[in-house]
Amino acid sequence: MGYGVVGLKGKEFNLVSIGIIKLDKLEDHALKLKHIFERVTGLIDSYTPDELAIEAPFYGKNVQSMLKLGRAQGVAIAAALMREIPIFEYQPRKIKLSITGSGNSTKEQVAEMLQRLLNFQDMPTHLDATDGLAAAMCHIFQQNNPRGFGAKSGIKKAGSGGWEKFVSENKDRVK
Amino acid sequence: MGYGVVGLKGKEFNLVSIGIIKLDKLEDHALKLKHIFERVTGLIDSYTPDELAIEAPFYGKNVQSMLKLGRAQGVAIAAALMREIPIFEYQPRKIKLSITGSGNSTKEQVAEMLQRLLNFQDMPTHLDATDGLAAAMCHIFQQNNPRGFGAKSGIKKAGSGGWEKFVSENKDRVK
Repeated sequence: MGYGVVGLKGKEFNLVSIGIIKLDKLEDHALKLKHIFERVTGLIDSYTPDELAIEAPFYGKNVQSMLKLGRAQGVAIAAALMREIPIFEYQPRKIKLSITGSGNSTKEQVAEMLQRLLNFQDMPTHLDATDGLAAAMCHIFQQNNPRGFGAKSGIKKAGSGGWEKFVSENKDRVK
Repeated sequence: MGYGVVGLKGKEFNLVSIGIIKLDKLEDHALKLKHIFERVTGLIDSYTPDELAIEAPFYGKNVQSMLKLGRAQGVAIAAALMREIPIFEYQPRKIKLSITGSGNSTKEQVAEMLQRLLNFQDMPTHLDATDGLAAAMCHIFQQNNPRGFGAKSGIKKAGSGGWEKFVSENKDRVK
């Protein structure tokens, strides 16, 4: 499970933190949930984000893994609800589209574009980390999103804007 | 979504509260999650339960409803994790078996048996309420469960014991 923290000042954004929540050493599903809850709560308390973006799951999974994923997302969502942080949800395709300009791009292509956009030196060893960062950057690109709605409704579906808009407004930043 | 709060002193148990968390008026999935989280947190703060029992989902659902159910359970689980309350999970069949003696009994049969066991006058209008209570009573009947493990591991799978044991130990209470 990856996460990325991005700062936004006006139209300038910068990478604050990127990482993963390691779950592979915890065999018990319950321990994983507990760990996710504690880590997400810890990240929220450390970085006090204004908003949280998550990736909507891909429905190609079976019901059992869907339940596990749902519970994992549920505890992460609860951590944000607890601190009254609005949650925004984006489809995987939408995230890829907003980062690379194509909804069919690979994880590697998304990671490479993120590296260029945010100028980080070393590519994280786990691509899951860039997954989390991609959701955050996708949210940054949604300039037309009505703000302040998420806090009341919990999760807000993605608005428009995105990569095309960013490119047209930031031609000097895209090489 | 139903809940039941049961008090246990020695081998005597009593009904403390029974109810449902109404979600049908909330159209938005996100608002439902927020409502579940707040209500479960509120119930925990009101009744300060020592342990929480939940019903494991039935896998006959589709992936989309499984994700929703998973998230709903996730936020409820997070509410318990937040207060460090051990969580125990029981299969639907196991719950029915421990209440009525048959894993194939109907909701109505389970509700009727709960009414006799706990001596409540009026049957709740929503059988979802007795679903929650059934999970709690199933947990009460698991006398052989090793305690104190749940708090560290998050969710504990059901042990043995149950209805048969209760019957053999409490012949005077079973008519």
